Order: sequence, then C-alpha cells, then structure tokens
Amino acid sequence: MSIARHKIFNDPVYGFISVPKGLLLQLIDHPYFQRLRRIRQTGLAHYVYPGALHTRFHHALGALHLMQQAIEVLRSKGVEITEAEAEAVCCAILLHDIGHGPYSHALEHAIIDLHHEELSVWFMEALNQEFGGRLELAIAIFSNRYHKPFLHQLVSGQLDMDRMDYLNRDSFFTGVSEGVIGYDRIIKMLAVHDGELVVEEKGIYSIEKFLIARRLMYWQVYLHKTNVAAEQMLTCALHRARALSLMGVKVEAPAALRWFLELSAEEVPAREILLRRFAQLDDTDVGAALKEWAGSPDPVLQRFSSGLLDRRLYRLEWSTEPFDPAYRAKMRDKAVAVLGPAFPEEYLLLEGKESNQAYQESKEPIRILFKDGRVCTIGACSDVPLYTQLVSKYFLAYPK
Amino acid sequence: MSIARHKIFNDPVYGFISVPKGLLLQLIDHPYFQRLRRIRQTGLAHYVYPGALHTRFHHALGALHLMQQAIEVLRSKGVEITEAEAEAVCCAILLHDIGHGPYSHALEHAIIDLHHEELSVWFMEALNQEFGGRLELAIAIFSNRYHKPFLHQLVSGQLDMDRMDYLNRDSFFTGVSEGVIGYDRIIKMLAVHDGELVVEEKGIYSIEKFLIARRLMYWQVYLHKTNVAAEQMLTCALHRARALSLMGVKVEAPAALRWFLELSAEEVPAREILLRRFAQLDDTDVGAALKEWAGSPDPVLQRFSSGLLDRRLYRLEWSTEPFDPAYRAKMRDKAVAVLGPAFPEEYLLLEGKESNQAYQESKEPIRILFKDGRVCTIGACSDVPLYTQLVSKYFLAYPK
Amino acid sequence: MSIARHKIFNDPVYGFISVPKGLLLQLIDHPYFQRLRRIRQTGLAHYVYPGALHTRFHHALGALHLMQQAIEVLRSKGVEITEAEAEAVCCAILLHDIGHGPYSHALEHAIIDLHHEELSVWFMEALNQEFGGRLELAIAIFSNRYHKPFLHQLVSGQLDMDRMDYLNRDSFFTGVSEGVIGYDRIIKMLAVHDGELVVEEKGIYSIEKFLIARRLMYWQVYLHKTNVAAEQMLTCALHRARALSLMGVKVEAPAALRWFLELSAEEVPAREILLRRFAQLDDTDVGAALKEWAGSPDPVLQRFSSGLLDRRLYRLEWSTEPFDPAYRAKMRDKAVAVLGPAFPEEYLLLEGKESNQAYQESKEPIRILFKDGRVCTIGACSDVPLYTQLVSKYFLAYPK
Amino acid sequence: MSIARHKIFNDPVYGFISVPKGLLLQLIDHPYFQRLRRIRQTGLAHYVYPGALHTRFHHALGALHLMQQAIEVLRSKGVEITEAEAEAVCCAILLHDIGHGPYSHALEHAIIDLHHEELSVWFMEALNQEFGGRLELAIAIFSNRYHKPFLHQLVSGQLDMDRMDYLNRDSFFTGVSEGVIGYDRIIKMLAVHDGELVVEEKGIYSIEKFLIARRLMYWQVYLHKTNVAAEQMLTCALHRARALSLMGVKVEAPAALRWFLELSAEEVPAREILLRRFAQLDDTDVGAALKEWAGSPDPVLQRFSSGLLDRRLYRLEWSTEPFDPAYRAKMRDKAVAVLGPAFPEEYLLLEGKESNQAYQESKEPIRILFKDGRVCTIGACSDVPLYTQLVSKYFLAYPK
Repeated sequence: MSIARHKIFNDPVYGFISVPKGLLLQLIDHPYFQRLRRIRQTGLAHYVYPGALHTRFHHALGALHLMQQAIEVLRSKGVEITEAEAEAVCCAILLHDIGHGPYSHALEHAIIDLHHEELSVWFMEALNQEFGGRLELAIAIFSNRYHKPFLHQLVSGQLDMDRMDYLNRDSFFTGVSEGVIGYDRIIKMLAVHDGELVVEEKGIYSIEKFLIARRLMYWQVYLHKTNVAAEQMLTCALHRARALSLMGVKVEAPAALRWFLELSAEEVPAREILLRRFAQLDDTDVGAALKEWAGSPDPVLQRFSSGLLDRRLYRLEWSTEPFDPAYRAKMRDKAVAVLGPAFPEEYLLLEGKESNQAYQESKEPIRILFKDGRVCTIGACSDVPLYTQLVSKYFLAYPK
Repeated sequence: MSIARHKIFNDPVYGFISVPKGLLLQLIDHPYFQRLRRIRQTGLAHYVYPGALHTRFHHALGALHLMQQAIEVLRSKGVEITEAEAEAVCCAILLHDIGHGPYSHALEHAIIDLHHEELSVWFMEALNQEFGGRLELAIAIFSNRYHKPFLHQLVSGQLDMDRMDYLNRDSFFTGVSEGVIGYDRIIKMLAVHDGELVVEEKGIYSIEKFLIARRLMYWQVYLHKTNVAAEQMLTCALHRARALSLMGVKVEAPAALRWFLELSAEEVPAREILLRRFAQLDDTDVGAALKEWAGSPDPVLQRFSSGLLDRRLYRLEWSTEPFDPAYRAKMRDKAVAVLGPAFPEEYLLLEGKESNQAYQESKEPIRILFKDGRVCTIGACSDVPLYTQLVSKYFLAYPK
Repeated sequence: MSIARHKIFNDPVYGFISVPKGLLLQLIDHPYFQRLRRIRQTGLAHYVYPGALHTRFHHALGALHLMQQAIEVLRSKGVEITEAEAEAVCCAILLHDIGHGPYSHALEHAIIDLHHEELSVWFMEALNQEFGGRLELAIAIFSNRYHKPFLHQLVSGQLDMDRMDYLNRDSFFTGVSEGVIGYDRIIKMLAVHDGELVVEEKGIYSIEKFLIARRLMYWQVYLHKTNVAAEQMLTCALHRARALSLMGVKVEAPAALRWFLELSAEEVPAREILLRRFAQLDDTDVGAALKEWAGSPDPVLQRFSSGLLDRRLYRLEWSTEPFDPAYRAKMRDKAVAVLGPAFPEEYLLLEGKESNQAYQESKEPIRILFKDGRVCTIGACSDVPLYTQLVSKYFLAYPK
Repeated sequence: MSIARHKIFNDPVYGFISVPKGLLLQLIDHPYFQRLRRIRQTGLAHYVYPGALHTRFHHALGALHLMQQAIEVLRSKGVEITEAEAEAVCCAILLHDIGHGPYSHALEHAIIDLHHEELSVWFMEALNQEFGGRLELAIAIFSNRYHKPFLHQLVSGQLDMDRMDYLNRDSFFTGVSEGVIGYDRIIKMLAVHDGELVVEEKGIYSIEKFLIARRLMYWQVYLHKTNVAAEQMLTCALHRARALSLMGVKVEAPAALRWFLELSAEEVPAREILLRRFAQLDDTDVGAALKEWAGSPDPVLQRFSSGLLDRRLYRLEWSTEPFDPAYRAKMRDKAVAVLGPAFPEEYLLLEGKESNQAYQESKEPIRILFKDGRVCTIGACSDVPLYTQLVSKYFLAYPK
C-alpha cells in the first residue's frame, strides 16, 4: 500500500499545494503559523471586494508553492541548489510574513511601533530555538547573509515569490482580473547569472505586465479610496481606544488587545514578552473590540466602530496636490455639522498621503539575461518607459 | 453627464453584481444585512479548504444576481413578471438566509433551538414593518402564498437560485472544481409551464450534473470528515460553556454571545427581544470566545477551544453501519488515555449521524419540458438512475 | 548562462507543457506527429461549439503532460518506475492517437475500414524502425505486454491520461463547463496495488464526477444532434464520392484523398504503402474536397458538401425506440419534396444508432484502495448507482 | 409552452452569446458570414500557441456580444439609443471584419492589394442590396457618417468592441493570461459625453491595463518571432506561386486560389467579380495548396511549403537597428550553404520591419469623464506615461 509523503492543501488559486512531511509541515502546524489563519491578507479591502477574505496563512502556503516551482525550474537549468538550501529557502518564504499582526497598517500606526519585517525575524529566531537550530540557514537567507544572493532574491526582491503570490491571490479573491500575472511564464524564465536572479529575454513582456499589474493592484485595491477610508477609521478607533486606556478610562476589549492598549509609550517590555503577547493577537480581537466599542459612551469610539460594523464609511478624495486650505475648512465645517460640536477636532477629518512605486530601477533592479549572455536591467532594455516614478497622492476623508 | 442608476458589487464568481438603487440597496445597507458580512457561508470548512472564508453576505448578493438573470430569461420567453413581482422575488432571494447565525449548525444544536428559516421570516417581518409594508409581496412569495408558484420555486425549490449560487460559490472558494455547475446553461433553459418552473429538454444533462455536483459537494466539503469533526468540537465547546454558565460558573465571552449562554431553557424571551439579541451575534463573537476559553481552567472548554484555534482536531471516521460497541469502547479508552480520567464522559467521543439526499423526486420534483409540450419529472425521463437515495453515515470522532 | 533542457509548449488548459529534449521531442518534430496539427480532436463539433477547433496534436501533448504528473505522484508514493519505463510510457501516451485520420468516424465508415488503434500500432512500429528500436518498450506497454500492468492502464484504461485530457480539453474549448473534471485531484489520488492502478479512497467522489462528466460530454458534445447530423452528411459525401470514383466518374479532390477514393474494395495495398498514403491525409484534404464538391453536377455530392460549407444541416431526432415506419415514411416523403424525385433513395434519410456507456464495471474496473489496505471496484463500494448502463438511441435525420 | 426568441451560441470565453432572431441571425446564416468559420483569427500563431485556432466567425460573435452589453450599460445611464440604432451598431460590429481573407497579412502582400477594411465595406454593400437596404444605417455608422459619433467609436476606435473581444479571445485561446483585460469593468464604465464615447474616472487603471495588454499581445503573440517567420514563409510561397503562374508554369492549387494566382497585375476585374471570387477563398485553399506545393519541383515552393507543413521554420531575429550589412552577408552565406546555390537570391533571407503603437493620443484619443463633469484625454490625466511610442523593429530570418 502506498503512503503519501506529502500533505496536500487545497487552494483555488493553484489547485493543490503539496508540502513534504518534515520541518516545513511542523512549522505550519505550529500555533505561531496557525495564527495566520486569523489574519486577513488584505485587511479591510473586503469592504470593496467582498471576496477578499483570504488570509496570510493561505498566502504563505501559496508563496511556498511558487518557491517549489522556482527551485525545480532553476535546477532543471543546471543551477545548483542543495537539499538543505532548498528546504531553507522554502522555510524562509513560508515564514516571511509571520510577523504580521491584524490590520498591520492601522496597528502599526496606532498601537505598536514595530514593523512586521522585524517581527518576522523575531518569530523566526524563536522558532529556530524551539526547533534546535534547524532554521539557521533559512534566517541567513532571509537576512541576505548567505553567499548565494539569488536565494534571498527569491524570498525578497522586486520579483520574489511573495509578490508573485500576492498579486495572483489578491486578484483571484477580489475578482480584479487585471491583476493577473503570468506567474508560471515568469517562473519558467527565471535563471541565475553570476549568483544573481535573472529573467531570460523571452520573459521581458511578462515582467512589464507584472509591474503594471502591481501598480494597478495598488490603486485599484490596496489604495482604493474606500479601503483607505476604512483603514483610517480603524486607525482612529484604535488610537482613541489607546488614548482613553492610557488616561485610565476603562475600554472593553479582548485580553490580547487590551494588553497593548494599556501599554504606555514609556514601557519597553522584554522582547520575549512582547513576542508572546503579539502572538496572541489577531483579527478576531480587533473585530470583537469594534463590536464592544460600537456601544461605547465615547462618541469617537462609537462613531468609528459602528461605522465600520455597518459599513457607513467616510467619503475619501484623492488629490495629486495638497488640499486647498479653504476646501479643507469647508469639509471640516461639514464634518462638525454631522458629528456635533463636541467631536474632538483631531478626528473630524482623516488626512494623509499614500505613495506607490511599481518598480525601483535604482535598488536591486530586475535583470534580463539575453541569449548572447549579456545581462542588463529591465529599465535599460525595455523599449517603453517603466513605471518607475513614485506616485504620491494626498487624501482627505470626511463623514457623508 | 451620465449618472449610474445601479451600485456595482465586485464578485470573483460572476464578475460584477449590479443592484438597482432603491429598496434592494436599502435592504443591503441595513445593519441586519451588513451583519451577514461577518457570518461565513461554510462555517468551519476553511480548516480543510483554506479559501472558504466567503460570507453569507456575498452568497445573498450572488443569488440575487442569478435571480436577475432568471427573470430576464423568463421574460424573454414571454412569461409575465411585473415590475413589482420582480422586485419582490429579488428581495425574497436577497433575504432568504438572513436568519442565519454564526456557525448555524453548531449554534442550533448547542445554544438556541431556532431554525434559520423561521428566523429569516422574523427578520423579513421586522424589516417589512420598518420599510412600511414594502416587503409584503416578498414575504408572500417566500412563504409560498403567492398565486404564481414559479416565483417561490425560484427562491426555494430543488433548483432555486440559492442552491445554484452556493454550489458555484462554494466550489470557487474551496477550489473543488468538480462542484462547478452549468448555472448559466440551466438558467437559459428555465421556462414556466402551467405556472410552475420547468427546464427545457436540452437542459437535462445539466440538471443531472447539477444533482451530482450537489451530492459531491456534500461529501467532499460540507460533510468532509475534518469539517464535521471541527463542527462537533465547536458544538461541544458551546454546549459546555452554556452548561457552566447555567450552573453559575463565570464564562468569559463577548456580550452578544454571553446573553445566549445565560439564557435558561425555561425563559422564553419576547420575540422582538430575541431577534434584537440574535441580530448582534456573528462569527466574531464565537471566535473571540474561543480565544478566551483556550485558557479556561475548565478542561473541556480549554481542550476544544485550543484545539480549534491551533487546528488540533479530533480524528473522525465514517461508517455506513452503527459502530461496533467493542470498537467504540476501545476508542473511548484511548480518549481517556489522552484526555485524562477527569474528562467528562459525555465529551470523550463525538458521535452522530449525517445524511444527504441529492434529489427528492417525491417532493416538488424538477420538471422537464419537452419540445412537444409534454412535461415530466426528471426522474421519469432521465435514462440513468438519479441520486435519489438518502445516504446516511454514522460518525465517531476521538482525539488523535 | 543557463540553458533550458526542455522545450515549452503553450497550452491554455494547463498553462505550460514541458517536454525534455531527447526522444520525446524528436517524435513530436516528426512529420507523422506534426500531421496531427491538421486533425481536429472533435471533428465537426465546431458546428455546435465554435471554439472546438483544437487538434489531436494538442491533445497528445496534454495527455503527455498528465502522464508526467502521474509518474511524479506515483514515484512520490514509493512506486518504482525506472527512467526507461517513464520515457516509454510517455512515448506511448504521446503516440496513442497517432493513427487517427481526418474525421475518423466518417472516414472509417465511408473510405477505409481500418480502426485508428490498429493504425496507431503501425505508426509506432514504423517510428520504432526509424528510431532504431527505441520504441520497443513503449509498444510493449501500449499493447499491454509489459509486466507492470499499471503502466498500460495509465495509457489505456477507464481512467487513463487520454480520457483525462480529452474531457478537460474538450470542456475547455467547447465551453461546456460541466465536463470539467478534477483531474489534478484524481491524479494526486492515484496509487499502485499489486501492480494495478488504483485510486485512494478519498478520490471516490472525484471518480463519480469523472464518470458523469464523461456521460455528459457524450450526449452534450460528441453525440449532440447537430454534430451527428453533420458527421452523417460528411459520411454520405465521402461515400458518394468514392462510389462515383469507382464507377469511373471524375471526382475532384486533393491528391492525398483521391488515392483513397479510387482504391477499390478488392485492392489490398501493402501495409507500408497504405501507411505512407494515410500519413498524407488530414482535415485539409476533406475541407478542400468539400469546397470542390459544393459545385459538383452530382446532386448528392453538391447537396451534402454545400450544406456542410454553409451550415445548412439536416435536422436530427433521437429516439429510444426504433422509429415508427409510418413516421419514417412521412419524413422520407418530406425529404423527396425538398430534394427532388431524382435524389437517390439511400441518401434521402440519414439513419442509425449511437450508444454510450459511461463506465463498464465488468471489464478492467476502476479500483479503490482503502486506508486499511482493502481494494474493491468502484461499483462495489460507491453508495450510489454508477452509470454502467449502455444507453443506446436511434437517430433519424432529414433536410429542413 | 415557451418559445425562445433568441439563438444561443456556445462560447468558452463568455459562456453564451444570445442573438435575437431577425436580421442579425440572417446575416450570420449567410454564406459570406459562414465563410468566416474557415478563416482563423490569428493566422499562423498556432505554430507558437497550438490552441490559437479560433476563427473570425467566433470573434465577430464575441464582439457582437460585447456590443449588446455596451448598449445595455449606456442605456441604463440614460443615453438614448433607439431600437434601429441598436440593431445597426450590432450589424456593424458583426460585419466589421467580413472583408478578411485567409492569412490576410500574407495574402495582401503577395496576392491581392486590397485592404480588408475596404473589402468589408464591399461585402456590407452587397449584403445591403440583398437585404433590401436594411443595412443602410449600419454602413453609415461603420463609415462614421452618422450623427452620433459614439456609435462609430464602439465599432471602430481605440476602445472598441473589436479590440476588446480580440484581446480577450486571443488571450483565452493562446493561454497568454497576461493579455486578459477587464472588459466587463471597462464596459461598465463606458458613458457618453457630448455625443462622444468616454470612460468614467474609476475605469482609468483598467484602461492603462488594456493598453499594456494590447502592447503585450502584439509582441508576445501577433509579432512573436516564430509567427512572423511563418508568415514570411507563407508570403514567399504565395508570391512564388503567383510569379510562376504568371510566367505560365502550371501551379496546382484549389480553384478559388488559382484564380487569384493567375490574375495579372494589369487586369482589373469588375468589383462584383472580384468580390464573388474573394468570397470563395478561405484557409482551406491555402492549406491545400501548401500540401500540393510541398512536392513541387520548384525548390522555393517546395522549401517553404514543406517547411510550413512539418514546422521546420526559419529562425528570426529582431533588432531595434537595421541589421549590420556584414552580419546580413554572413547569414546570407549560411542560407546559401543550406539551400544550395540555385536557390533564388530574393528568397534566401526574409527581411523587413514591424511596428506597434499601443495607443495614439493624437488621433481620436480615449477620453476620461470625471465626477465633476470634466473630460480629458487619458494621456493628459494618467499619472504614468502611456505606451504612445511607435515601437519599430527590424527582422532578419534565415534557415536553421
């Protein structure tokens, strides 16, 4: 009788994801990783794209799947990747986002000033200890300290398996078909030259398409006006809850979240305590808190929370220029009319700036390998201008 | 300048769902309906199919979309459907599942003994009052009290827009491509004969396929052994939490859920109170409660809750016969060995029976319309046996 | 610089098909195989499904792709398949349909009485000679003379890679989504037990679905009334052309086809001559002949050819019983009214019988492997009746 | 009993295409239109993308389908389109490509110096006569002589239903997923402003994506080096065949093609004769001719024809600069070595230039409608550079 040596995960994007039994599967089964089942990949984008409820758990599995394919393609072209390196680069991509908390963007602005990439390293180091050092090589690759740079580039670069999967996956679950990329074509065209990841000449149009897809997904999904408005409202709710907590007002919230709300800016908890607490947090805590806060006596907390629950969101406008002070003043007055004179000034309008750069030629550019052995950056050899400009836009949001 | 008269919802399954401004959109914007954004369509199936996180909100919109197509097809064949009837049947399908609570199956077994269809009517009646009687006709159609039976059959029958959408949608988000049905082909073949919904002869193979897809989705998804095991564990956790609450033990839970946990079997709250409380409940409450309970001193609550959080699930076996008492005893002893002698007897093993019947010829059968005007039930005119048997299976689940 | 060791074929069904350089690629490049580019997989089905123009060339590549996956899955479960066996079974599936001529069904009835499977062996033997015996093992597997029966079953059985690909591919190009099968799920569930191909227990619903998909594709596509009508008309045109040729009437046709039209039933050409001539024939010849014949002075040739060109097809009716002689007489008289009294009697009506059996339990059944090591046929362990009946229908077609 | 008022065409791209009975269906049934069933949309691209066998027939139906959607969207926004205008614009899109011959690009270079757009008008006028003037309005719209310019723009502009369908369809059948466009999103965003077609602001990223998809499909599919090489070889074969014919050498070919081969440059046949002859030509004639020519005593005809049949194609190189004369001379010598000294000089190398401009801002630009009523061209309001440059490349092809 045959016995499967792999565990198979169901995935509507790729069909099946096959994970060999062993270290990778043990990592997946760990509570740190299982926690990613409760953290959505695209935060609040489901207010615009109701299907976008997929999680970082699924994304990490998907990126692992693409990594397995990339390894196979590179090996078939004669690139040496040992078994240990293959496992390590797979572990690195599996764990690349493990430091994400719930609604990272809002959380990082309002509650903890820790970036998810730093936290990912903390998690990896904690797991490395737990697994007796078996993640050493994975951490070296993740941190770009390994002597084969292409392995790091597969995990974290301008053409890495992370981006490849999230563009695919976010397109799939949002239904924004235009974000679809030719990931299989790109992966088939990957090669290694002087230790660096390159793309064979024939893949050049697919790369162009990949860059435009990324740009499109930013403005159509990640920075969609409704998504940004919702995220700003959540940031405000969290910010307010913390401010009240620190002033000694009792704010109801699940224990995992309460700990962070009550942590003053001066306290610096030991890293291991912080990590343990952080590992308890997920979307459920934020969701449950919003439900409590919707009935809060505090008008700010009440307004933003019930607005998020019932999808009564602020209207957001983009502008390529800073907003005219007169216009801003007019909208502020309208907000006062809606929210009442007692509503704190700082929460009347939601303002800020968002930027996106589809591709940076200056920093670790995407390299094209020609048949004659030449290598040049895509910016230098594409016959159209690439989307290298940093596009920034100002936003102003106010109650409807 | 053109002004859109519709609001467009993004849907990866159908592309776009277009809802005319007016009553339908007002219903969608109502908190009762927005609440469905927080209730997953397939409960805990995401433990097996990580993409299956889609909600009853999205399903209701999808079913509405198919209803709009069905109306257009029928009208194009000369079937009279007035504007009022069209709006009403659309309202009815939109609200057909509004009575669902979080994880209905588990909840109905452990907490409240109210079926979601009954609750849907309650919700509709409450909304009807709020909207000044504008849902009268929708309720009449939903309750099969209208003189054009085909309208009710489009909402609730063996070939209704509900089933059509959930098979499509659940297939899409699980990735079980075999559940895909030819919904567009079937809808194009719908017709009305003597006031009843029928399918034109050419659609007969699509109907056969629809029935097998339904059967397949039951056993492959809804009754997948891991899904049933998880649901049983959740039922036990909720059941235990309520038992403890009623014994006076303090059980932490979000307010919306706590109210139900503390409601004794003898108390019969007024319908409007019950409805108001029920309308507060969603998946978030259950998720947050599980997180609290994972650290509970009660071993049952702790075991099932942490098991669900970290995906350490019971192993479940199916059997076409009742399990042999000797085998059952053996598994019970194994469970004791794992869970300890203090673990209450009633939670050691999870047992029960599940059934599925893909199609019932006896009750409101699917009717086929032949070119010569004859109508007969699909069971009578298919040249293969249909899946009419009631398939029942016993299950036994125990800790790994 | 990396050098690809594979050639990649584009395929909308599977994305990419990767063929290792070497024997397989040399076979693909051979004119015998390139000829399959000019032979449509589903003959005249494009009259009903305008997208169904895909060729046997593409199907053979697709089946090869699935075979590569099956080999990988089986090896991952510990089934020994040597490199030589893997190449041979890949060659066997690549060449399994190489004996097909244009519109095989019509051709075999009207022109040459040789079945495509016999011709496939002839082609393989000719290629084996040309390639210095390198196809010996492939032929042994194809002919079921090799001591590992599962290899033959992968090429030709009730669950072989041929069926798997054509159901997928024909679904894709026709757009009959209901024919979609869970081929990846099924392949992942393949195993070997006592040298025979089996399917793991978890795949049982996918197999049921595969069988119904096959049944559906037969009646919805391959035996669609318009497809059968067109095929009958082509059979008549070819039959008439040959009859005229043998009577000495000059019938214009491309040289490759003319040779066959002029071959009398008594002549038995040497196998190598026949093969060489047959290898010249493809859809182009039939298409060009029809264009010539549309202007023929012979009314039969003219009628059927111009009907096929301009899609003025006979109307076809199916009946589960033989047609009533009175009805037949009535339709014959109508045909005379349309076609004129000089139209030969034998071409007035197109009549016959078609059958389909989705699955034969009696002959090489599909076997299911249970977790406890038991193996039983799917018919014995499915909890629903399978589609094992031979469904036969009579047809009668006449001019509109 | 219900009677369908539409005929339904199966389409894997859109599911179903529904055509109302009446003029549109009569046009589809006409032999002029049925002939498009035998003319492939992407000529010889199937040498690179084996699935790309779809026809101009299917494309025309698809464009009609999109037009029906566009009409519905515009009407729902209050744009007045009468029934007569709707039918006319549908006829115009259905017939927009009816003037295409087989492998138009090659044919127009080698055989007849008539552009397909001119021929489309000829066909429409002939049909108009046959249908008693019922195509007057369609022709006026097609020729941009109607007072509602947006109707013409839907048929023929930089964002017309023709481009929309062919990008979709060619992506689908080639499997180049990157060519996928958000056609449904774009169509939903169409509006009319001052009688001109515009796109609502929200559609701006979809338009950017549409332009890049078009650019990508040009270089990845239509101008793929293998496709261009094959097309050049076909051009040479046809050119040579005609040259031989005109010199009085007997060249075998189907009658429909032979007429054109024998037509000297001086003869100018009457338009109605030319049209009647042209309407006889399709891919079958070219395919059958190649099969005859593969055995021709003329080395040029033999070489190119057998090369196309057996897929032994020239190797083609692109260069942004004209090729260096020394390099050209070197490749010419290599060609002589392969082809022999008797091979005519003019057929040794295949040379030329191809260009593509994804979008022309200067000529009938795509206009964006802002919420505040402003309209500006996409070039003026996109925050990235558009693909407006004319990209030209030189090619040089030679035998392998």
